[in-house]
Amino acid sequence: MTKLHIFATGGTIDKVYFDALSEFQVGESPLDAILREANVGFEYELTSLMKKDSLELTDGDRDTIFEAVSACDAAHVLITHGTDTMAQTGERLRAIKDKTIILTGAMQPARLRSTDAIFNVGFAIAAASLQSPGVYIAMNGRVFPAGQVRKDRAAGRFVAASDA
Amino acid sequence: MTKLHIFATGGTIDKVYFDALSEFQVGESPLDAILREANVGFEYELTSLMKKDSLELTDGDRDTIFEAVSACDAAHVLITHGTDTMAQTGERLRAIKDKTIILTGAMQPARLRSTDAIFNVGFAIAAASLQSPGVYIAMNGRVFPAGQVRKDRAAGRFVAASDA
Amino acid sequence: MTKLHIFATGGTIDKVYFDALSEFQVGESPLDAILREANVGFEYELTSLMKKDSLELTDGDRDTIFEAVSACDAAHVLITHGTDTMAQTGERLRAIKDKTIILTGAMQPARLRSTDAIFNVGFAIAAASLQSPGVYIAMNGRVFPAGQVRKDRAAGRFVAASDA
Amino acid sequence: MTKLHIFATGGTIDKVYFDALSEFQVGESPLDAILREANVGFEYELTSLMKKDSLELTDGDRDTIFEAVSACDAAHVLITHGTDTMAQTGERLRAIKDKTIILTGAMQPARLRSTDAIFNVGFAIAAASLQSPGVYIAMNGRVFPAGQVRKDRAAGRFVAASDA
Repeated sequence: MTKLHIFATGGTIDKVYFDALSEFQVGESPLDAILREANVGFEYELTSLMKKDSLELTDGDRDTIFEAVSACDAAHVLITHGTDTMAQTGERLRAIKDKTIILTGAMQPARLRSTDAIFNVGFAIAAASLQSPGVYIAMNGRVFPAGQVRKDRAAGRFVAASDA
Repeated sequence: MTKLHIFATGGTIDKVYFDALSEFQVGESPLDAILREANVGFEYELTSLMKKDSLELTDGDRDTIFEAVSACDAAHVLITHGTDTMAQTGERLRAIKDKTIILTGAMQPARLRSTDAIFNVGFAIAAASLQSPGVYIAMNGRVFPAGQVRKDRAAGRFVAASDA
Repeated sequence: MTKLHIFATGGTIDKVYFDALSEFQVGESPLDAILREANVGFEYELTSLMKKDSLELTDGDRDTIFEAVSACDAAHVLITHGTDTMAQTGERLRAIKDKTIILTGAMQPARLRSTDAIFNVGFAIAAASLQSPGVYIAMNGRVFPAGQVRKDRAAGRFVAASDA
Repeated sequence: MTKLHIFATGGTIDKVYFDALSEFQVGESPLDAILREANVGFEYELTSLMKKDSLELTDGDRDTIFEAVSACDAAHVLITHGTDTMAQTGERLRAIKDKTIILTGAMQPARLRSTDAIFNVGFAIAAASLQSPGVYIAMNGRVFPAGQVRKDRAAGRFVAASDA
């Protein structure tokens, strides 16, 4: 992997607690902090596209993501995204054929003491580096091709779309 | 990946602080806690082979690792290991041809508030799942074939053996 | 301090992230986990009275707190509480004259990697042990008598009511 | 408390993991980071006197601590210290009569994800603020007068010297 381009779109992984509002809201991406802590030995660029819960993403937002990913010059792309419509955004990006595009996120904010975010980012970056071109969702220690995955809300994890 | 077999051998990733000794020593593997926190959706088995700093590993210990990995029925294997002689153990395992074997570890104990361990485990598991059979070292966000990697102590990271 | 009775009422200190709701809500009190981690050497009892943001506390809730604190047999009481109306609840409790009652809470949930909660709990417990009977708010490393304190939202900290 | 002077002397609370040495050693004091995280509302000054395991402290080191504490102009003093000889240093300082001096430390390094350090610092600062002049050890949620306390290594906590 010569270079990884990371696009942050918001979602739980980016959430920060705002005392003034008494609620968690999407904040700055923790990706840069996570990658510095891991002392990674590859080149990367981080672009913040939007700061939204994924239920609030519009078709226009997905167009913006599509265009940004298409236009970037990296062959390896990581998109951090809310989990509720991650599968949808994955579908939208399937028309991009010449890049390895991995979507990931977290069920628990990266800033929590106990979180799946850091594991997921490590896992997703290996997938971005090793998978052949295409669009994939990397969650819960598994890689799913876009269009063949869904979030099982009750179980709190992603499963193959074909699973009962 | 139908099943991942994880072998813990010790190293910094497993270190725990013992007040009675006023020092950090190798403790129980944190892998199970990390995988539960990540709520992973694949089957795994965790075997503790030894609890040693990797500078203390003997040829006999490497024979033990070789035999345990050869004998296990999983096609995907993750070995957690101290970083100082990880490259050596990787070389020793190259004769095993039919499994995807990934060695990983950490520069900072997994139990620290700031650590590379959780990222590395996530990254290494994706590599274990996606790489073709062979022996690899997954550290610092990169995958190196065994025999082509060294630890650059001054930089605190792994680099290709060919790098200056 | 022969015994400390802790009453949890909710607030930011208790917040947990619920993926299903995409928001933080008041969860179980982290006090027991914090006290076990600190390996404290005094006797304590923890009672959960309610699980509310403090802006949602009613006069009836404050009556409940008043009665529970009055009725308990401990001379030292710690109340964990949301910060927005902590000063009000402190005022309500001033009629209890024979106990040392300390209110504390946090601006950032205890479950965050970076939080003021654990410091505040340690600080408040020393105050509960050492102050003469009365009602106090212990926040930001200071102890304020009830009725003489307010939350400065802009600064994100508690200050003496007399401060500009 | 108009001002708190903090003296760091080393000990477990300050320990950092050094990969190059494969061991934990005393590093920079985490006190400043802990107090910023707690957003404390009092004035403080932090002086690093030495960076030693407390078993390595000499009579000369204790003289240095004695002189630094005596000479400082704050009426409230916090000393962070290794736990093994904290009681001894407390005894040495008893001749200072006009300040409230609290010694604290930790059984687990502050930089661990699970540690008693942050609770202890919060607790000790309240004790420094509220106790009458004298020398005290604040550990495990209790305040002990110097000369009346010992570390129970087997139990991993401080107890009154008179306890069996």
